[in-house]
Amino acid sequence: MFSEIKEECGIFGIYNNMESDVAGKVYHGIYALQHRGQESCGIVVNDMGLFTQHRDLGLVPEVFTKESIEKLGRGNMAVGHVMNNSGKPDSASVQPTLIKHVKGQMALSYNGCLVNAMELKRQYELGGAIFHNSTDAEVIAYAITEQRLNSKSIEEAVLKAMYNLRGAYCLLVMSPRKLIAVRDPDGLKPLCMGKCADGSIVFASESCALDIIDAKLIRDLLPGEVVVAGDSGITSIKEHCGEKSSMCVFEFVYFARPDSVLEGTTVQTARKKAGEILAAEHPVEADVVIGVPDSGLDAAIGYAEKSGIPYAIGFIKNRYVGRTFIQPSQSEREHSVKIKLNVIREVVAGKRVVLVDDSVVRGTTSIPVVNLLREAGASQVHMRISSPPYMHPCYF
Amino acid sequence: MFSEIKEECGIFGIYNNMESDVAGKVYHGIYALQHRGQESCGIVVNDMGLFTQHRDLGLVPEVFTKESIEKLGRGNMAVGHVMNNSGKPDSASVQPTLIKHVKGQMALSYNGCLVNAMELKRQYELGGAIFHNSTDAEVIAYAITEQRLNSKSIEEAVLKAMYNLRGAYCLLVMSPRKLIAVRDPDGLKPLCMGKCADGSIVFASESCALDIIDAKLIRDLLPGEVVVAGDSGITSIKEHCGEKSSMCVFEFVYFARPDSVLEGTTVQTARKKAGEILAAEHPVEADVVIGVPDSGLDAAIGYAEKSGIPYAIGFIKNRYVGRTFIQPSQSEREHSVKIKLNVIREVVAGKRVVLVDDSVVRGTTSIPVVNLLREAGASQVHMRISSPPYMHPCYF
Amino acid sequence: MFSEIKEECGIFGIYNNMESDVAGKVYHGIYALQHRGQESCGIVVNDMGLFTQHRDLGLVPEVFTKESIEKLGRGNMAVGHVMNNSGKPDSASVQPTLIKHVKGQMALSYNGCLVNAMELKRQYELGGAIFHNSTDAEVIAYAITEQRLNSKSIEEAVLKAMYNLRGAYCLLVMSPRKLIAVRDPDGLKPLCMGKCADGSIVFASESCALDIIDAKLIRDLLPGEVVVAGDSGITSIKEHCGEKSSMCVFEFVYFARPDSVLEGTTVQTARKKAGEILAAEHPVEADVVIGVPDSGLDAAIGYAEKSGIPYAIGFIKNRYVGRTFIQPSQSEREHSVKIKLNVIREVVAGKRVVLVDDSVVRGTTSIPVVNLLREAGASQVHMRISSPPYMHPCYF
Amino acid sequence: MFSEIKEECGIFGIYNNMESDVAGKVYHGIYALQHRGQESCGIVVNDMGLFTQHRDLGLVPEVFTKESIEKLGRGNMAVGHVMNNSGKPDSASVQPTLIKHVKGQMALSYNGCLVNAMELKRQYELGGAIFHNSTDAEVIAYAITEQRLNSKSIEEAVLKAMYNLRGAYCLLVMSPRKLIAVRDPDGLKPLCMGKCADGSIVFASESCALDIIDAKLIRDLLPGEVVVAGDSGITSIKEHCGEKSSMCVFEFVYFARPDSVLEGTTVQTARKKAGEILAAEHPVEADVVIGVPDSGLDAAIGYAEKSGIPYAIGFIKNRYVGRTFIQPSQSEREHSVKIKLNVIREVVAGKRVVLVDDSVVRGTTSIPVVNLLREAGASQVHMRISSPPYMHPCYF
Repeated sequence: MFSEIKEECGIFGIYNNMESDVAGKVYHGIYALQHRGQESCGIVVNDMGLFTQHRDLGLVPEVFTKESIEKLGRGNMAVGHVMNNSGKPDSASVQPTLIKHVKGQMALSYNGCLVNAMELKRQYELGGAIFHNSTDAEVIAYAITEQRLNSKSIEEAVLKAMYNLRGAYCLLVMSPRKLIAVRDPDGLKPLCMGKCADGSIVFASESCALDIIDAKLIRDLLPGEVVVAGDSGITSIKEHCGEKSSMCVFEFVYFARPDSVLEGTTVQTARKKAGEILAAEHPVEADVVIGVPDSGLDAAIGYAEKSGIPYAIGFIKNRYVGRTFIQPSQSEREHSVKIKLNVIREVVAGKRVVLVDDSVVRGTTSIPVVNLLREAGASQVHMRISSPPYMHPCYF
Repeated sequence: MFSEIKEECGIFGIYNNMESDVAGKVYHGIYALQHRGQESCGIVVNDMGLFTQHRDLGLVPEVFTKESIEKLGRGNMAVGHVMNNSGKPDSASVQPTLIKHVKGQMALSYNGCLVNAMELKRQYELGGAIFHNSTDAEVIAYAITEQRLNSKSIEEAVLKAMYNLRGAYCLLVMSPRKLIAVRDPDGLKPLCMGKCADGSIVFASESCALDIIDAKLIRDLLPGEVVVAGDSGITSIKEHCGEKSSMCVFEFVYFARPDSVLEGTTVQTARKKAGEILAAEHPVEADVVIGVPDSGLDAAIGYAEKSGIPYAIGFIKNRYVGRTFIQPSQSEREHSVKIKLNVIREVVAGKRVVLVDDSVVRGTTSIPVVNLLREAGASQVHMRISSPPYMHPCYF
Repeated sequence: MFSEIKEECGIFGIYNNMESDVAGKVYHGIYALQHRGQESCGIVVNDMGLFTQHRDLGLVPEVFTKESIEKLGRGNMAVGHVMNNSGKPDSASVQPTLIKHVKGQMALSYNGCLVNAMELKRQYELGGAIFHNSTDAEVIAYAITEQRLNSKSIEEAVLKAMYNLRGAYCLLVMSPRKLIAVRDPDGLKPLCMGKCADGSIVFASESCALDIIDAKLIRDLLPGEVVVAGDSGITSIKEHCGEKSSMCVFEFVYFARPDSVLEGTTVQTARKKAGEILAAEHPVEADVVIGVPDSGLDAAIGYAEKSGIPYAIGFIKNRYVGRTFIQPSQSEREHSVKIKLNVIREVVAGKRVVLVDDSVVRGTTSIPVVNLLREAGASQVHMRISSPPYMHPCYF
Repeated sequence: MFSEIKEECGIFGIYNNMESDVAGKVYHGIYALQHRGQESCGIVVNDMGLFTQHRDLGLVPEVFTKESIEKLGRGNMAVGHVMNNSGKPDSASVQPTLIKHVKGQMALSYNGCLVNAMELKRQYELGGAIFHNSTDAEVIAYAITEQRLNSKSIEEAVLKAMYNLRGAYCLLVMSPRKLIAVRDPDGLKPLCMGKCADGSIVFASESCALDIIDAKLIRDLLPGEVVVAGDSGITSIKEHCGEKSSMCVFEFVYFARPDSVLEGTTVQTARKKAGEILAAEHPVEADVVIGVPDSGLDAAIGYAEKSGIPYAIGFIKNRYVGRTFIQPSQSEREHSVKIKLNVIREVVAGKRVVLVDDSVVRGTTSIPVVNLLREAGASQVHMRISSPPYMHPCYF
């Protein structure tokens, strides 16, 4: 329902042999990925080795104006990023991370959850490293830089560094001449590749970011796969492949956009399926099935179809509620859920209601939602959750 | 679908005998009415005759901050307003209109479409009047002021002025000591009244604005009814009543929020009903029924239920697309619909699709939407419109 | 010294028979007049009868961007305005005032202090008038409109209206086809006219606004003079002339920029002269003469030259202190003068100091300034004021 | 005159044993140093080891609001920074630099010009270091971190690191428990220390930043001196002392505020003296001496006194011209100097003028200034420069 897990990101990258409006493409791509992170965003453009960046706290349409896109200029590759930061936005942490190391500049767009980040950080600090922020991306930058001196190429350094990284990570590494896409060996986070009509190769967290720029989805990267786009074409390296994909269940039930295709399945279809399974495993006698908007709706439709109980739209969301909502006086605090959601009384009054939600990580917002139904006259409220929160990899 | 008719407003007012946080209440009220106007908004607070205002171009959460609400201060009554202005926002036209006339100050919140505005304007100008903006509200302010000198009370002036006004209008008139709510004799625009637990009387364009502050809906104002809230209580004057309500059909199919109750019926139910009628009157053989988000969805569900053709969600909306979206390069223009909507291919590929929309005023955006379906592989697309555009009163 | 009298304005207008970048010219003109008003500003462009405006609270470089100047477009005449509003900026009062009356549109830029504004306002209200703000400009708009119906031309209406106006006023009245400049019969406020190389005629509160656009100063308008610029050329009407000029003394000592020429004399020269007179009338034995920046410096130089006591720069101003300075904690309040001014100790320590200021309207800031000198070790501080505050016309 | 050398900074730090409003103190301090850098600023507060930062592009009163100062909170020490960045402001470079290294957090405020920065950078990169920006401060952070592992204390690491640094640098190093002030062995940049009434020790680039918070100036740091403020009091370490001070001449003639005391002399006095020397070395026969505002005025007064030629104020500066000035049309470009400066004709017309400026680094703006005088009717213009540009250490 309302953003309870906030550490999530969306990444996007594009590579071509020729200069073009890559900034515009990335802008559209991260706009389509906005649902994966609303606190900060950025783009780094690479024009034949010259890097230009624009990054800031805010939504994509707030951070990027016509002018800032023009300033980024044209280039032959670019990476972009959208991020949530656990509700504590910090300008020093905004990605893509852009650094200079011994072999030149490197930009990193990262989505993941590194299990051994603290351990690696300590190790690099003992070697004299300094850190500017608390992101895993900076740790990974050191991990790659460490290997670079003894490697013939940036991709060799990336492959070596991966032996030291543990956890969930999808990476786009942009060097002066190459764009490298990396998916962790467990495939915990999504990353797909596609192709534009002009031959550009595109990488994105979700396929909805390909649709927006008319790129065709080629396929998901395999768990552990490293794809290198450079002068000599596109190369797939499977040195770290082998594991079966263990895609984070939250991608399906919470993070991803319903129109994205993950592992061959449209997210909406997966969610509806989850609702059907829920109906089979946790049946209940009731008069109506309603979902919590937006991500609970598909599972509710699935629950309704499977159970034979009629589906209805029970809540209306105020689509203008943003991050800046203020609470003018103390006594108005209880309205915060009400401002976002309103019940349609006719749908629930006097009825036994099945309420389907997609995720209840902490459960704190479930209570006011159930209360809204009771106040509107529901005689019974049966809550059904379409995903077990303990499956989230960051909770391991 | 996407805002084609833009001249629409939402009005909200509150009256109490005692001073309280009326600004906070109006803020919540106009926030719930944001769907009726996104270009400008304002609040005027009346603290025992002392008027304070804050108005500007922008959404409610942009224009009002904690600080600006505090500056408005407490009072015993207040009115608020949200507006669209045909896409040409003009700071001089932002309402509530606050003027000073011979009997003191007066604030006006107005929603409507005055048929004889130009005629009245000309007449007042010949009498030496000057106009600061091009709103009907300023014309109405003159119409009331004209009668005020020869009237014993502000409500008497309002009732006399109504004989000169023709067309659709809902009005909140706040004088130093009274709050007067007016609905035009044809009842073309909605206006309801409610009551808070602390006894405050509330007027709003739609009942969803009462729900948000826990006010109970009393009833819609009758066509032609004038309700006066003042020291001596609440008085209903029916001098202009008599006409049967001719509520603008666009309120049901386009403007109002689905959870609002208009003339005793929830808007969502009315929309679903419209879809059922559409299925009966314009049947077609097809495989799936989908609606254009957001306002076409309910009619699509109704169409599906009546016709027996399965309903499905066929479009996903990017809920972060706002007014500030930029088009970095010429070649990206065609993406503008794509940025807002994405088709779920699995739902439509190879299928005969019934596409239900709520309103097609100019029809210009229907073509790209149909094209999206064709590109996604729909074998046939049958468009069904749940409301005839010629019914809109402003088109007479 | 620091802005004690805040109700002041600067006006600027330009007329040509041909379309050109008048908005850019007015922008430069009001930028040069910024010292006359920092709270709001605006420009109205008239392109052969089509009026376009941009007005807002803020400094000229804040309100006007490249984009907003471009939106104003080209035209054949334009008027601009900068204003202070007694420290209570109110968006409804921002000028130029742009209204529509029976004969079309009219824009007004006004600098003055109307003695009978309240009286006129009451009279118009009794005739049905409504007022949107509390500026004299709106009253004058009614005064002109009232005469317009019985006048053959806009200038005739202006001349008739002037019989009803009492007090200080300089006016620029822009009608669809004419630009009319008006100086009140007592000549209390300054207004000059000049000419550009391309033949454009320009009106401005001070000549420094002509210099910036390379316009040549022709002369000051006479007290009571009305100059009409239109298709048939430039016409001067002296129906209201006759009075001797009684230019507000504050123009010389406080408002005007030192490089402006008022009534044939550079303001700086007038200020220096005032210092010389001061030295003659109020001599004192001392070691050094210093002025309070910025407007007290010229008088201090005059005092020093006349008295033979050495002149020195005793205060340094922090030129980055703007309107938005914040006081982080209660205990820091006393720093507010210190943040703006710092004493150069070497100049005053152990010395008898003559401190020359230009105006002490309320005297409240004189005390901390004298204290700064004492803390820095001055043995004696003799204050000398170069203008008597009771001479300000708004204090009559 | 107008900012020609842009790479300059101001630094400020405060230390106390007890928690207090150090953020407010630093805010005032860097506000007084605003003339040393207008493109970005920042403050880092240390509350018993917990670091909080706020940094951004913009002037001090733009970046810091009451709210952001409150968010920084109280602490027992803090450092601040203002910077120019050669006209290419870059959010990644804003100081104070805040990093985490093996011994915890460290904040750095730096003013200088490191001669061997590129060399050191290369050396650290070969050891695996990554750089986030192109500031010397980050290089110095590595230089200190490198020594920290083999040092018993942070000050020992700083002293060792200094053997590797060459060029001009003043540093404030804030560790969890200490504040360390460093002046380079050649004393090229200014740094002084002072004491508040409550016992706080303060370090600042110029003494005007002490005045504003009522701190008493103790003395300048010696060239090479390191002062450590910590639990055990204030310690001065002179391991790197010995060189004679070679204060950058631009500090006196260009950077510093006239009321600051550098090496025992008020800057204004030094500037006046420079004007006297100039008059002795480069005499000329003329009628009037004028200075280019603001920094050329004192030298002009000195020139006038020494030469016996009368001094006058010849230019008026528009004090509202900021960084955001726009040029509406191509044809207006030539106005850019005129918008900032206007000549007082009476002062120069028909006269032989000595024009004194403080610095002519590139000389490009001298031409339009001389042109202004010629257009105003000066019969001769003799330019005199009070400082030789080749003396600037960054030009070695």
